[in-house]
Amino acid sequence: MNPNIIIQRLEALRRIMRHKGISATIIPHVDPHQSEYMSRHWHVREFFSGFNGSAGTLVVTLDTAALWTDSRYFLQAAAQLEGTSIELMKEGLPSTPSIYAYIINVSHAGAKVGLDGMLFTKRSLDALEEELSRHSITTDTEFRPADTLWTDRPPLPSDPIYILGEQHAGEMASAKLGRLRKAIAEAGAEAMYLTELDSIAWLLNLRGSDVEFNPVFTATLYVAPDGGTLFIDLAKAGDDVRAYLGGYSIRMRPYDDAPRFLASTSVKILANPATLPASVARTPGIEWVFAPSPVPAMKAEKNDVELRNLRHAMAIEGAAMVNAITDITARLEAGDTVTELDVVDTLSRFRAEHPSYRGDSFGTIAGYADHGAIVHYEPTSQTNAVLRPEGLLLIDTGGQYLHGTTDITRTISLGNPTDEERHDFTLVLKGHIALARAVFPEGTRGAQLDVLARQFLWQEGKTYLHGTGHGVGFFLNVHEGPQSIRLQENPVALRPGMVTSDEPGLYLAGRYGIRCENLVLTTEAADTEHGRFLKFEVLSLFPFDRTLLDMSILTDTEIAWLDDYHRKVLSTLSPFLRGDSLHWLESACAPICR
Amino acid sequence: MNPNIIIQRLEALRRIMRHKGISATIIPHVDPHQSEYMSRHWHVREFFSGFNGSAGTLVVTLDTAALWTDSRYFLQAAAQLEGTSIELMKEGLPSTPSIYAYIINVSHAGAKVGLDGMLFTKRSLDALEEELSRHSITTDTEFRPADTLWTDRPPLPSDPIYILGEQHAGEMASAKLGRLRKAIAEAGAEAMYLTELDSIAWLLNLRGSDVEFNPVFTATLYVAPDGGTLFIDLAKAGDDVRAYLGGYSIRMRPYDDAPRFLASTSVKILANPATLPASVARTPGIEWVFAPSPVPAMKAEKNDVELRNLRHAMAIEGAAMVNAITDITARLEAGDTVTELDVVDTLSRFRAEHPSYRGDSFGTIAGYADHGAIVHYEPTSQTNAVLRPEGLLLIDTGGQYLHGTTDITRTISLGNPTDEERHDFTLVLKGHIALARAVFPEGTRGAQLDVLARQFLWQEGKTYLHGTGHGVGFFLNVHEGPQSIRLQENPVALRPGMVTSDEPGLYLAGRYGIRCENLVLTTEAADTEHGRFLKFEVLSLFPFDRTLLDMSILTDTEIAWLDDYHRKVLSTLSPFLRGDSLHWLESACAPICR
Repeated sequence: MNPNIIIQRLEALRRIMRHKGISATIIPHVDPHQSEYMSRHWHVREFFSGFNGSAGTLVVTLDTAALWTDSRYFLQAAAQLEGTSIELMKEGLPSTPSIYAYIINVSHAGAKVGLDGMLFTKRSLDALEEELSRHSITTDTEFRPADTLWTDRPPLPSDPIYILGEQHAGEMASAKLGRLRKAIAEAGAEAMYLTELDSIAWLLNLRGSDVEFNPVFTATLYVAPDGGTLFIDLAKAGDDVRAYLGGYSIRMRPYDDAPRFLASTSVKILANPATLPASVARTPGIEWVFAPSPVPAMKAEKNDVELRNLRHAMAIEGAAMVNAITDITARLEAGDTVTELDVVDTLSRFRAEHPSYRGDSFGTIAGYADHGAIVHYEPTSQTNAVLRPEGLLLIDTGGQYLHGTTDITRTISLGNPTDEERHDFTLVLKGHIALARAVFPEGTRGAQLDVLARQFLWQEGKTYLHGTGHGVGFFLNVHEGPQSIRLQENPVALRPGMVTSDEPGLYLAGRYGIRCENLVLTTEAADTEHGRFLKFEVLSLFPFDRTLLDMSILTDTEIAWLDDYHRKVLSTLSPFLRGDSLHWLESACAPICR
Repeated sequence: MNPNIIIQRLEALRRIMRHKGISATIIPHVDPHQSEYMSRHWHVREFFSGFNGSAGTLVVTLDTAALWTDSRYFLQAAAQLEGTSIELMKEGLPSTPSIYAYIINVSHAGAKVGLDGMLFTKRSLDALEEELSRHSITTDTEFRPADTLWTDRPPLPSDPIYILGEQHAGEMASAKLGRLRKAIAEAGAEAMYLTELDSIAWLLNLRGSDVEFNPVFTATLYVAPDGGTLFIDLAKAGDDVRAYLGGYSIRMRPYDDAPRFLASTSVKILANPATLPASVARTPGIEWVFAPSPVPAMKAEKNDVELRNLRHAMAIEGAAMVNAITDITARLEAGDTVTELDVVDTLSRFRAEHPSYRGDSFGTIAGYADHGAIVHYEPTSQTNAVLRPEGLLLIDTGGQYLHGTTDITRTISLGNPTDEERHDFTLVLKGHIALARAVFPEGTRGAQLDVLARQFLWQEGKTYLHGTGHGVGFFLNVHEGPQSIRLQENPVALRPGMVTSDEPGLYLAGRYGIRCENLVLTTEAADTEHGRFLKFEVLSLFPFDRTLLDMSILTDTEIAWLDDYHRKVLSTLSPFLRGDSLHWLESACAPICR
């Protein structure tokens, strides 16, 4: 984008700020649902800055502007902000001021900060205002300059929503609503207001396609003791959905009507202060009960039907991956030019052959050689590397199927792996196996198990900075809570039915990246005199690259685990494969010899 | 004790309660310093109940009485409370009411609960009163019936205190006070009031012998910007101590003078709300800054002199243990009768041969066979078992030396170990070794590493309910914070210089108990492109019983670790041993053969 356009937009913004007596405005990259993926309608920060990374906050004062983003985006932001007058603030560097400190530094006592209270949660705005008030700075929480300045702003998506049948969801919405109403009462409330899109989709067994990757739809939901109200663009719901919701006494009202409606009720309404928009929280006349939402924990524990479907989705996904890798391998062996983007396209193409496929679950990472060391790398036409018969290719990919959501990472040698590549790969794989093999008492938290995946890397002074495991939705968001497996404490215990990733890695800047990821299901292991013990069942199905094993550091137990796993992969995927793909898999899953 | 005496004491107590309009009184087993070991002066709960366990709280109402204690003391409490009219409340059972619930249940609105505000911390009394006030119940926090009823109450100990020289402490009190004053200023205060006895002893390089096992003395300390005041029984300090403290401008005043003195100051005083007595906290006229004490973290990171001394203490301790075990083994082989109490006495006797010895660091646990499965078992003349040439003997023991505090547990086979004993012992030992071998990045917390010690037990549906590791003081308390290695989250990171125990175990009720414990020191491992890594150095020196190894589940790495450790034990202890003891050690430390 021409930087002069950004300069003009900032000047127009400052005219409105002066007019309203606002000395600084904060423009986050977020929607009123705290979504990971957002429709274009909410890309306000990009409109005012030109920066289109997935994380970053813009602050504009009357004579300065600055954008905070993390290390993933330092290069991209520097390029996109060039000539715009916006200063890049590199998060994580000791010299970088916080947004608080920056605003306080440029503001005098009595100054006013403008922001859109729909894009701040109750909790985050309370914290911001507490900090600012110590310096006698006030806020205008209804400041929405994009409404007038962004003349060609895309509308909210009006894509239709559809019903996910009980054969996929496994539990009727009536049952889910019944369980939720019990939890609402236990929290001391009579009703609940939900704004998290995946919680609403799960609760109502509805899906949509408003954004890429997440099969959710833009709406908020009021759950009353005897029915409810879905706040949504009415054009999105056909007669079938209307009748379906009517069966649960759930009416529909326009998306923006929620605050006014909630103020008209006279019951105690439960809401999650960590996601509820501050503007809604502050609507006069609503009696709130602020507490964590019970839905993420309910949603995380998959039911038996979801699990049966999910195991099927894993087979579909595994077969598509085998077909894709066999195809890519053949093209490379034939001397064709194959790029990172070709890998991405090939994977989606083979996935799309299955009728259950509804899109990818996130943008595929196909990072060759040094690109593999960039943790959130996605190839673009500018970066697209040509694969050569050497080095490591890191593929992190997943699909959305009616039968469930998948997410898998494999690191593949394209030829002649070095001793160091094999050694590092095996360290990562040993950690992956140690976590997958874990048995642990009921009540164990992810942070307690995280070290199992890191211990072998740590022994050699190596580590990775991302988490080891995130929750995964059922035909929903590929990242969901409440559980996690990571360094940081999270009080949520791993419970039977939860699906979590197991994905240790290692990243050597400028050289290569390694990650081994399967999804694992928490299941029961044993009841003993010492209590109830849980373990993991591995769900993902695709072989690990045997040419990358350093046999000198693998134990007999680990080799037996790999052989068992490969036997299961082969027997489960074989019926879905034929020809070269089947031969490729048979060879990839052959027993490992000492 | 005759239960009628208890009934008479309770009746006398109730007369005072009626007179003061108090409907319930709470009598905890604690002193104003929240000490683990207390002088007899503070055994008020025992005076009114007859129960002398180390944990438990008595509640007396006008017509009922109940005592809460944990599972360690269920049998003992039931016996000691028999006939006293005091009901036993078994903590941890779902049917047991909380003390709150009990009091609320027997009290009417407007009732008054009596307690001694010196025995409740600011934090615990605030929480109690918040709970009670919801039911319109008030408190009288100056209710001390023992002052009148306990006519032969032992006075506070007046044992002399002494100076720990710099050759032992490694840092002069002036330097420690300087560091503390910096931390006080950083916390926004000008002075500090300390009540934890081990913090005061560490800070001033003074020691005492007021209680068993902990070389502390009863006092509280006010640290001013330019000096301080030690509140203490003036008879305890000789001229040397008086002159020594004078050098730091620290005066002495009577023990009970602190609240009045603090109220006369006009500076902001830092205090730890988790240990400060509520009565002191509520003294009018004191301007408090409530924050965690900086001292435990300072004290936990041992200096180089302390570490050099501590390594010497480990050699003294290891040699004493070898002498004791050699002696016991010889008596058993000669057919003498040897009991658990003989083991305790023999250990203390050989320790006492060294001039650095100042007592045991806790009551030795010598649990033979099924006694080993009772986690806090200490043999008494009633329970004292005779050792036979079979089964397991669990010995958990430690000494206080001028050179440092030790704490070690060994599980020893007395003959013909069963396959199950060897298998379970080896599972515990594998966990002990895995934790001892850990390498981890700076910032790692104990709760992240705990699983390393438990993983092999968990694989078989086994576990232990106590923590894996506690901090250990330098010639101070054998249990100290702030770090720990356990299931529960503790935000404190393991830092270089910290000494922590590594003590997984397994307890099979009615059969046997196993525990393997060494003290380990956190040290630097490596600085790499991925950051700074730490590891443990094993401090304790005594061989593990090789007759209890199940070779089929030990890895080469674990055997190499054991051989390395035994080589170090032998080479360090040999110069201190001769004759049979040296021969015993040479045999116990011989390389392990597959």
